Amino acid sequence: MNYRMIGNMVGRLLLLEAGLLLLPALVSLIYREASLWALLAAAGVALLLGGALTALVRVRDKTIYAKEGFVIVSLSWILLSAVGALPFVLSGEMPSYVDALFETVSGFTTTGASVATDLYAFSHGVLFWRSFTHWIGGMGVLVLMMALIPTGTGRTIHVMRAEVPGPIVGKLVPRLRDTAKILYLIYLALTVVEIIALLCAGMPLFDSFIYTFGTAGTGGFGMHPDSVGSYGPAVQWIITVFMLLFGVNFNIYYLLLIRSFRPAFTSRELWLYLGVVLVSAGVITANVLPLYAGIDEALRQAVFQVSSIVTTTGFATTDFNLWPGLSKGILLLLMFMGGCAGSTAGGLKMSRVMLLGKTVVRELKRLVHPRSVGVVRLEGKRVEEETVHSTAAYFILYMALLAVAFLVLSAEPFSLETNLTAAITCLNNVGPGLGDVGPMGGFAAYSVLSKVVLTLTMLLGRLEIYPLVLALLPGTWTKE
Amino acid sequence: MNYRMIGNMVGRLLLLEAGLLLLPALVSLIYREASLWALLAAAGVALLLGGALTALVRVRDKTIYAKEGFVIVSLSWILLSAVGALPFVLSGEMPSYVDALFETVSGFTTTGASVATDLYAFSHGVLFWRSFTHWIGGMGVLVLMMALIPTGTGRTIHVMRAEVPGPIVGKLVPRLRDTAKILYLIYLALTVVEIIALLCAGMPLFDSFIYTFGTAGTGGFGMHPDSVGSYGPAVQWIITVFMLLFGVNFNIYYLLLIRSFRPAFTSRELWLYLGVVLVSAGVITANVLPLYAGIDEALRQAVFQVSSIVTTTGFATTDFNLWPGLSKGILLLLMFMGGCAGSTAGGLKMSRVMLLGKTVVRELKRLVHPRSVGVVRLEGKRVEEETVHSTAAYFILYMALLAVAFLVLSAEPFSLETNLTAAITCLNNVGPGLGDVGPMGGFAAYSVLSKVVLTLTMLLGRLEIYPLVLALLPGTWTKE
Repeated sequence: MNYRMIGNMVGRLLLLEAGLLLLPALVSLIYREASLWALLAAAGVALLLGGALTALVRVRDKTIYAKEGFVIVSLSWILLSAVGALPFVLSGEMPSYVDALFETVSGFTTTGASVATDLYAFSHGVLFWRSFTHWIGGMGVLVLMMALIPTGTGRTIHVMRAEVPGPIVGKLVPRLRDTAKILYLIYLALTVVEIIALLCAGMPLFDSFIYTFGTAGTGGFGMHPDSVGSYGPAVQWIITVFMLLFGVNFNIYYLLLIRSFRPAFTSRELWLYLGVVLVSAGVITANVLPLYAGIDEALRQAVFQVSSIVTTTGFATTDFNLWPGLSKGILLLLMFMGGCAGSTAGGLKMSRVMLLGKTVVRELKRLVHPRSVGVVRLEGKRVEEETVHSTAAYFILYMALLAVAFLVLSAEPFSLETNLTAAITCLNNVGPGLGDVGPMGGFAAYSVLSKVVLTLTMLLGRLEIYPLVLALLPGTWTKE
Repeated sequence: MNYRMIGNMVGRLLLLEAGLLLLPALVSLIYREASLWALLAAAGVALLLGGALTALVRVRDKTIYAKEGFVIVSLSWILLSAVGALPFVLSGEMPSYVDALFETVSGFTTTGASVATDLYAFSHGVLFWRSFTHWIGGMGVLVLMMALIPTGTGRTIHVMRAEVPGPIVGKLVPRLRDTAKILYLIYLALTVVEIIALLCAGMPLFDSFIYTFGTAGTGGFGMHPDSVGSYGPAVQWIITVFMLLFGVNFNIYYLLLIRSFRPAFTSRELWLYLGVVLVSAGVITANVLPLYAGIDEALRQAVFQVSSIVTTTGFATTDFNLWPGLSKGILLLLMFMGGCAGSTAGGLKMSRVMLLGKTVVRELKRLVHPRSVGVVRLEGKRVEEETVHSTAAYFILYMALLAVAFLVLSAEPFSLETNLTAAITCLNNVGPGLGDVGPMGGFAAYSVLSKVVLTLTMLLGRLEIYPLVLALLPGTWTKE
């Protein structure tokens, strides 16, 4: 285990966080808020810790293997959240550290589940930081670090593999740093375009930042108790479009940029994703039609909610908790699917769902023709057997973790619907569930134990389980 | 595809059913009930159909491959249920054929979910048939046929593999027919012992038959709206013990019979099963203590309900729907686990749960040490890679079917808790769920579409999905 490299990477990440904290501090300064000092203090802690780690740990060997990648990503995300929670506590706007950690992890993991009881009590600076964590966590904070700071030749692909969601993670261009840069430039460009679009639709500047961060990271933190409900149809449609855009595999945008249109538009994952959105929105529109003034409103509500849930953003324009069972059932299944791999969305991801489906089809074929040797293909390419089995194992572990999280929550005095969907929405990084944790509800009423478990569940969901579980296993640390 | 052999096997099965229907007819005769004619008519239909099939179809080649096994088992179970539903309809005691089919499939699959609104309206004969289907379906009706009628050398292991639950199905003794005989003799012996035990505890003879059939097949059909609630503690404890006994892998009993004690008592599956029961019952006892008069009553209720659910029997002595969330949560997870493979229990089965767990552990090891080649072992024996992958694919398909069934049910005007647990309890062949389909509720209020879907779900659960799905795929039929 290359401890020095781990310490160095984590240290540099904390330095990056110190820098990122200056942006909300600037917001506090503009609004002349007391939370400025809380944000600066948090930045100071990040600077001190990060500075100490990078200064004291001398890296002799830059080599990283898979296990170092898992440990770096796990430690980074835990420390990032631990420090990121400080502004909430130090400003006194969320005095409980457990609550602050829940909120921060919910932010970085782009879940959007909240334990805040009064959003209007937050200062602009802290509210900005809360939403900014979505943007930072969406594309991956270590990927951002790679884009900004040269890391040398240390096989940082292992770090990227551990942080970027999806069953298969590859490079767009030969150099990893260039890949990270390209991804972040696309991310930044889409972000800027959304802010401008929202401004054009009449949204105030501050709100535009808040809602764009929530959309870009597919997070879901807003600034009103009714999420996006009180904004007009224009804003709602803009957010719908951008939620869907941020749920697309970013490789597609890169393909479009290099004018490689054919592979971009023949992506099976893209069509499955759009097909799922279309069919779900269609069925739900018909199902909720009696609840709304006309088909245009029903359609808007259906498309918004479907896009929000399938991309695991978690914004809402209506209390879908009051929708008929069929619509709620569809939304519940969409939580599991998630957006495309290589996007900022959570959930299982479309390509993993495809891979699981193909695994089953191959097994059915093998049962009928025992001697047949089937090959699983994805986007026309042969998928390695290791990846096929790894994906199946991932699904098993994923359902097992869901069961454990649900079991812990079931000791709470809430309905099965509430507890089960709370576990589902956190593991899939969606945000709202059904029942008491519905889009107009929240997680504030849960006990400290449940909040801690849900915090862990969100982290497991965002890092796709393996890195965190492996970092916790003693075998990863002891054996060479 | 060996159509002739399929026709012959299905035909002989219907002849067997005709014979089995004479037992409830005898009950009707004793009680001088009009339902006698309905039972005899059903037996007549089975005799005619079975006689025609066996007389008209001449078998030239007795060879059966895996795909013939799937088709034989699927067709047999569908026809068996279609004819088995006739007594309900013809007697006028359950006039709707969809309802009668639901009830019959629930019986044969040993689910125990009921659409009957008044159990006391059934005649003794029909009620006996309803419970007798549990006993027939528990060990497998084709296994029974193999035990009774010689089938020649036609590799009927494929039929047994398709019908007997569990990830690995093997023979106890070299000859398959002897294996089938041994299994049924153990089954019969345990059944007789339970009837005697219940009689000794003061239960009337007819009731003893009904509740023993429900226990032996791990089915759960009773004869009172409160299931086993109105019988005394002695009866409840006897049923608890026998539910647990019928949830044990029958291979263990064979090992005990041939005095092979060491492998019997070192079975990992057995210990996992007993451990799960012990821990679950312990936690639930503590959790429900405030609801009952004392620790002895709390313990009895906890152990009974845990045994009933983990073995997927579905009897109840209390409305566990009113228990606290943690206890309900544990019961819900136990529904998925099920009893041991090679028992009459449903669910995933303990050995499959072990296999899934080991698949995950191996994957974790591989991620840390990419070049390691792990072998999955079960009961000390190496499990073939094919079985490991097949089990993972089974779990994926299983969860996908659960999602589909839930989605169809979610259009019903019931709570998410009701609809979700209805799908879970039918797929796992348990019987009761939570909410409106709880132990004191039922499935009568569901629409025809939902009943048909749940009927199919029960069949898929009992036959462990593959046979039925493969029999429906055109590829199984066309290609040679």
